[in-house]
Amino acid sequence: MTKRILILGGDGFCGWPTALRLSGQGFEVAIVDNLSRRNIDNELCCESLTPIQTIGKRLQSWRDISGRDVPFFNLDIAAQPQELLACINQFKPAAIVHFAEQRAAPYSMKTAWHKRYTVDNNVSGTNNLLAAIVESGLDIHLVHLGTMGVYGYGRVSGAAIPEGYLPVQIETESGWQKTDILHPADPGSIYHTTKTIDQLLFYFYNKNDGLRITDLHQGVVWGTQTPETAQHPDLINRFDYDGDYGTVLNRFLMQSAIGHPLTVYGTGGQTRAFIHIRDTVRCIQLAVENPPAAGERVEIFNQVTETWTVAELAQKVARISGAQIRHYQNPRKEATHNKLVVDRNKFMGLGLNPTTLDEGLLDEVVDIARRYQDRCDVARILPSSRWTRQQSLDQQGEAAPVTVSNQATG
Amino acid sequence: MTKRILILGGDGFCGWPTALRLSGQGFEVAIVDNLSRRNIDNELCCESLTPIQTIGKRLQSWRDISGRDVPFFNLDIAAQPQELLACINQFKPAAIVHFAEQRAAPYSMKTAWHKRYTVDNNVSGTNNLLAAIVESGLDIHLVHLGTMGVYGYGRVSGAAIPEGYLPVQIETESGWQKTDILHPADPGSIYHTTKTIDQLLFYFYNKNDGLRITDLHQGVVWGTQTPETAQHPDLINRFDYDGDYGTVLNRFLMQSAIGHPLTVYGTGGQTRAFIHIRDTVRCIQLAVENPPAAGERVEIFNQVTETWTVAELAQKVARISGAQIRHYQNPRKEATHNKLVVDRNKFMGLGLNPTTLDEGLLDEVVDIARRYQDRCDVARILPSSRWTRQQSLDQQGEAAPVTVSNQATG
Repeated sequence: MTKRILILGGDGFCGWPTALRLSGQGFEVAIVDNLSRRNIDNELCCESLTPIQTIGKRLQSWRDISGRDVPFFNLDIAAQPQELLACINQFKPAAIVHFAEQRAAPYSMKTAWHKRYTVDNNVSGTNNLLAAIVESGLDIHLVHLGTMGVYGYGRVSGAAIPEGYLPVQIETESGWQKTDILHPADPGSIYHTTKTIDQLLFYFYNKNDGLRITDLHQGVVWGTQTPETAQHPDLINRFDYDGDYGTVLNRFLMQSAIGHPLTVYGTGGQTRAFIHIRDTVRCIQLAVENPPAAGERVEIFNQVTETWTVAELAQKVARISGAQIRHYQNPRKEATHNKLVVDRNKFMGLGLNPTTLDEGLLDEVVDIARRYQDRCDVARILPSSRWTRQQSLDQQGEAAPVTVSNQATG
Repeated sequence: MTKRILILGGDGFCGWPTALRLSGQGFEVAIVDNLSRRNIDNELCCESLTPIQTIGKRLQSWRDISGRDVPFFNLDIAAQPQELLACINQFKPAAIVHFAEQRAAPYSMKTAWHKRYTVDNNVSGTNNLLAAIVESGLDIHLVHLGTMGVYGYGRVSGAAIPEGYLPVQIETESGWQKTDILHPADPGSIYHTTKTIDQLLFYFYNKNDGLRITDLHQGVVWGTQTPETAQHPDLINRFDYDGDYGTVLNRFLMQSAIGHPLTVYGTGGQTRAFIHIRDTVRCIQLAVENPPAAGERVEIFNQVTETWTVAELAQKVARISGAQIRHYQNPRKEATHNKLVVDRNKFMGLGLNPTTLDEGLLDEVVDIARRYQDRCDVARILPSSRWTRQQSLDQQGEAAPVTVSNQATG
């Protein structure tokens, strides 16, 4: 029997290419989405650089091209728990892939309203989903998109980041004893905090109800197209370039395409973990195909393929494109520099062959950015969120550049 | 200037005596409550064994007796964030004591609806409060009622439970290094999970916004009256004896008063930490009077005075009263036995002189239970919640006794 996969948030940047990948690989896929990401575009007076089609047109085109039907349920998992349960009971998925969370750190920090929205949406959504899976009585494997941000950066200098569980020694009556604990949480925004909260919900439902859960701690995603979304213009994936939703490398590539200086926050000494969207969808397929056994603890993978500092990324893009680099006051509250050593053996062990920044796909993203540059609103490029009240008071309105480095050339 | 204290959940079992204590000690106190606990009594067809008065009558009587006014704001901090902010901006408290969470583990596990209600109410409420404090721009010390249940039981055999932060060794490039981490969370119910989630929210808002926060990990509260609530019948505190909200020792004392067998779940080998309600209110005053300095991490106290196994408690009560002990299948999913060694030096260092079970207050609770025994609905004594789907299927309806021990005599 074909495995049925329900994809929550299947209209989004990662969800849409995942839905097509799994559908194309022969899974029976259905999408749940409340289209909130499109509504947030309206709120922010912004839109995807790429001209994405309505979910209806997307699915019609996919049907025409692949011959495969992907049902769509328009529902809000945070606000409509009964409809979510009905959907699960009707579709009877073997696995649910859960992307249905507000996923931008800057957006989550804009105002008290955005903090509340992000917590209410993400935490209630995840808890509603877990409670519905228990209530359904079905044996469903839950695959959740977490973030590398749950680990924080630099908690213990020099300690590598393991895949979820950290070996520690704890002092007991009989001396120091080794044990494994969930890696201590050190979130850097309200958004990241919700992902650390998800971990506690997973821990409890796994322990109490035996739910089979895989949590994928993903790095910063770059790229836009996958082999499936590239098959027809109607299937094109989102490309966010704005200060709230744009991820750092995609923002740089887009800025270079339109001749805007690359916007480095602070020194650029922050090291981040990266993954190409093509590898995101491969990883999710691998996770779906390798569920933890019944009775096992929550499975955690680090979904990353390489690490770079923000300054290194900017230099790389500047070399390709001749773009200027401009430093701005960092709107985030974070260390100026950090090391980041990430264990990522599990997906490698399952056969992932990673796409790296040096493989020419940078050019492909620049091509996309150039093709759609007329759709860019340059007023949306700089960050408008501030992490603290003091930062908001200090920087009313726009971010100001603080220094301009020499132009790097290739 | 008199310190202003806002008490969220100030109509409840711990909140009401705390409000009177602080008001009586000269603080300027206001109460916020949405009266949800009274509504849950309606839902469960149950009521406090003691005849508690309306919040209006309570406050009028306190005014008559003490000459002190305690303003009351009827609002739901989870659902009315704007009203909460307005209340904070109007009252300008130096400290907020936060009891405004659904606090019964069995209630949180009844159905998917109760799981969702507990998460939505507790997590959104706490996040709304934190976001409102930041938005107000006021320097407010937040004192939150947590639970010993965040630590779990028996994670590492023989390890004592510290006050919040656990010293561990982590492997780094230069060998094993000592560091302090927030004690790993091991919640035993959805209710307990929400308290572990609160810890993550406190961690983030303390780190990002510098909020001054004290989290009190309280044991199981017993007793009912404090010197303030005992001053007039209109001020009497709640006494819950039912299977959802009744705490174990109060349930035993009440059962003994009406000649009902003591309801021990499982073997009774579970060790729990206890505190008398008189010490709860003293601890909260100590916490309010000793805020962490600006820039300090979240302060965590263990608010407990002694530990006992459930079987030991039952034997103690049986010796006093001649009651029978009856064992029931445990509706919870937990270990049959656990050790529990709790660090509780901080409150002792601040001068707490604990009330213990051996000081005659057991008799006082039995007296209260006898005085109001006509108000008892014996149908509400046994637990009606089950922790897992399988337990619900196995035990349709009522709990069944599994063995009856010999009557213990004193």
